[in-house]
Amino acid sequence: MSIQLMKEFEPIFYPKSIAVVGASRNEAKSGTKYFKSLLETKFKGEVYPVNGGAESILGHKAYPSLSAIPGPVDYVIVAIPKRYLPELLDDIEKKGVKAVQFFTAGFRESGEQQGIEMEADLVKRARSAGFHVIGPNCIGVYNPSINMPYGMSPRLGEPGSVGFISQSGGVAGKIVKAGYIRGINFSKLVSFGNGSELDSVDYLEYFKEDPETEIIGAYLEGVTDGRKLIKLFKEISPVKPVVLWKGGRTEAGASAAQSHTGSMAASHAVWTALARQLGIVMVEDLEEMADALLTIQHVRKPLGQKLSIISGIAGGGGGDSVAATDGSSALGLEVIPFSGETRRQLKQILPSAGSILRNPLDVGSIGANLPVWENVLELVSADKNVDLIIIQQAIDDLFVNLGKENLEALNDVFIRFAQHQKTPLLMVSPPPFIVEARAEIEQKLRRARIPIFSSLKNAANAIVNVNQYYRVHPR
Amino acid sequence: MSIQLMKEFEPIFYPKSIAVVGASRNEAKSGTKYFKSLLETKFKGEVYPVNGGAESILGHKAYPSLSAIPGPVDYVIVAIPKRYLPELLDDIEKKGVKAVQFFTAGFRESGEQQGIEMEADLVKRARSAGFHVIGPNCIGVYNPSINMPYGMSPRLGEPGSVGFISQSGGVAGKIVKAGYIRGINFSKLVSFGNGSELDSVDYLEYFKEDPETEIIGAYLEGVTDGRKLIKLFKEISPVKPVVLWKGGRTEAGASAAQSHTGSMAASHAVWTALARQLGIVMVEDLEEMADALLTIQHVRKPLGQKLSIISGIAGGGGGDSVAATDGSSALGLEVIPFSGETRRQLKQILPSAGSILRNPLDVGSIGANLPVWENVLELVSADKNVDLIIIQQAIDDLFVNLGKENLEALNDVFIRFAQHQKTPLLMVSPPPFIVEARAEIEQKLRRARIPIFSSLKNAANAIVNVNQYYRVHPR
Repeated sequence: MSIQLMKEFEPIFYPKSIAVVGASRNEAKSGTKYFKSLLETKFKGEVYPVNGGAESILGHKAYPSLSAIPGPVDYVIVAIPKRYLPELLDDIEKKGVKAVQFFTAGFRESGEQQGIEMEADLVKRARSAGFHVIGPNCIGVYNPSINMPYGMSPRLGEPGSVGFISQSGGVAGKIVKAGYIRGINFSKLVSFGNGSELDSVDYLEYFKEDPETEIIGAYLEGVTDGRKLIKLFKEISPVKPVVLWKGGRTEAGASAAQSHTGSMAASHAVWTALARQLGIVMVEDLEEMADALLTIQHVRKPLGQKLSIISGIAGGGGGDSVAATDGSSALGLEVIPFSGETRRQLKQILPSAGSILRNPLDVGSIGANLPVWENVLELVSADKNVDLIIIQQAIDDLFVNLGKENLEALNDVFIRFAQHQKTPLLMVSPPPFIVEARAEIEQKLRRARIPIFSSLKNAANAIVNVNQYYRVHPR
Repeated sequence: MSIQLMKEFEPIFYPKSIAVVGASRNEAKSGTKYFKSLLETKFKGEVYPVNGGAESILGHKAYPSLSAIPGPVDYVIVAIPKRYLPELLDDIEKKGVKAVQFFTAGFRESGEQQGIEMEADLVKRARSAGFHVIGPNCIGVYNPSINMPYGMSPRLGEPGSVGFISQSGGVAGKIVKAGYIRGINFSKLVSFGNGSELDSVDYLEYFKEDPETEIIGAYLEGVTDGRKLIKLFKEISPVKPVVLWKGGRTEAGASAAQSHTGSMAASHAVWTALARQLGIVMVEDLEEMADALLTIQHVRKPLGQKLSIISGIAGGGGGDSVAATDGSSALGLEVIPFSGETRRQLKQILPSAGSILRNPLDVGSIGANLPVWENVLELVSADKNVDLIIIQQAIDDLFVNLGKENLEALNDVFIRFAQHQKTPLLMVSPPPFIVEARAEIEQKLRRARIPIFSSLKNAANAIVNVNQYYRVHPR
């Protein structure tokens, strides 16, 4: 079963050849953009533009039809108006294509009779001819390991362990982008829109078996086969953490979802109860999704309840500390004052003016005093009421305050600590940021598997979310 | 009373001369940084470095003491260890200084007997000698109208109508920075740390009268004179909107606050009830504070409950719409589907594939089609269930997709609409962002008083917060 399933999905997630129907000499057309982004990422396979009127497109020979292409075609991207579909479907069948992704919209989600019927016909045709349908009304597959870009965006992240399914192309695009920037690395991702022939449960079945996928993220607006979905989540969750964002959790949101992908949303309460039981991490927006995936990907173990928060690298740590403690406590985490012994030892190494030697710890502007930092991290992690450490550093401010070299040296201390200690280390660094200045340091932190959050609230939220998984599925 | 109060606070908020005690030839010292930032912002008045051992500092003649300075000194910044205080206080008294700001820490907030006593002595001395104390343990005053920078940060925002008081120097620094970036313009701001001689109520009394201050933001951790504070809030709130962030709202946060500024926090429930009654906007973190101040500053009227959300400028609007509707509805706002008439008219101008003609509206990738946009905005604002419009545009993505010129032209349409229509227009544009690319467009939007939020959730939150004020104080 598993091997057969892998084989079945191979043309979808590992196509060896892709044809783009709707690529043209007009660079503003979506088909052209799809084709161009495959060229720019140097997709590891054949790519063919299909266009009745052009000899060549972007320097590549164009074909009047799929069946005119000499070699086999695994995967077709369809970006033409739906009125041309009947002819195209004949061509698809004739060519023996395995997977067809429809960027084309105007089907079931339109709510109109003609669109609904067309979608039903498409599914029937796919089943009889033996090809799979991705979509319609979707962006399709992203697989950085074979340089298969996400839709029209010609940028690849590093391949990794996160599999993602999304009913919404926009949400999928945003998580891909968050991935580039923050280092969430995908095994593969699919935006499947209306989910006509292949639906969420089909992709999840594949991700369950896929050895490259160790963590699963899902944006779902509605579900056709709820029973099967629950069964799958039950099987997957103990082995691979699942982070689920249910769009349409409010009544108004649910009715917006229906217009978006033609989905009916189940009640939010039902989903929440189910998630709690199965150890599924439920999130409510994109940032929370990205934070949860990033944390699970980097840390891969429970984080604990008892935080130590460290701020004040270059002053101003007191207000941060109060806000951080408020934010964490409100989410049910604990920020327990250090033991007398920890305080006594901290007092010996930290300046008396400006530092606050409790938990949260305000180091009182020690800047990049590396030996002191090494001591501080050791002392704090040794305190019996510290499960994990969060460091608040405004990277772009520190760039100005400490200089690039000092800031790098300081972050190297954090990285060495994270690599040699059992206490997880998380980082909070608020936007807005000077992209270039920050990029290098962030990349080093990422490689050391230190998650970076844009606010303490987000970090605390991610901790609670990730712990929710490990509470149900202890390691 | 009012004129006397204004005069009393003049040396604090409009000093004509500032001396920095602790400026030195060592650029790493805080005093030097304070002095340097006054030079860099070209403070509109005299500045004097005071240092026993140096002839000149950063090219300016240095003085061995305050009394050695030839002209009068209104405001002194103290950045020397507290053991030198006795001698300095004699010098302050001798010179007849009016206001003294202590960056120096280690007083009441240390929790140690010696620090507590020193602070009490300082207050006694100030009262007998007739000078005011800002702090200790604080960063001091920011007044962009006289080029008075915030502490060591040599950057000035535009002068404006927001007065801000903060017990925390770090929080104040962050709101000043958010101000530069997002266009929250301050009349003046003070970080007052331990609030020894002048406390929150004193500054609020001034802001109440100050004609330059029309909106008040406050970060408070604790209050010594609660009765007076409530009385003041009661008087101020009907005239000037107040946005309050109470640090220490949880038990753990409250105890962190005590270590930070030596404050005892009142119960959060008490504050919340009070705020509701007085129409004070309560916020819980920095971003919410910035969002609320920005919205009040720009819009200056109630925003209404019924949103219209527009997305999909360059595709991908569907998922945004669902998430946006969920987020808004969860906060009690309404996103009511358009009337049949609005939909019928939208259908005539928007593409049939990819658009979703309800509310939220997905325009279906019309990009910078300006006449269509003008029509869309008019039609949407005419719908009877629309109080305000939120446009979701990922500015940096659109830069790439549409090009700079088109994106500017599109935003000019938004700006013209905002200037001529009664329906308030808000913008959501998520980070991370390419600072340069975005800056110009954001600046134009700011000048048109269109608030920009980093997420729909933040926008919705700000709407709820601002409406809370106008519900109690209708205009």
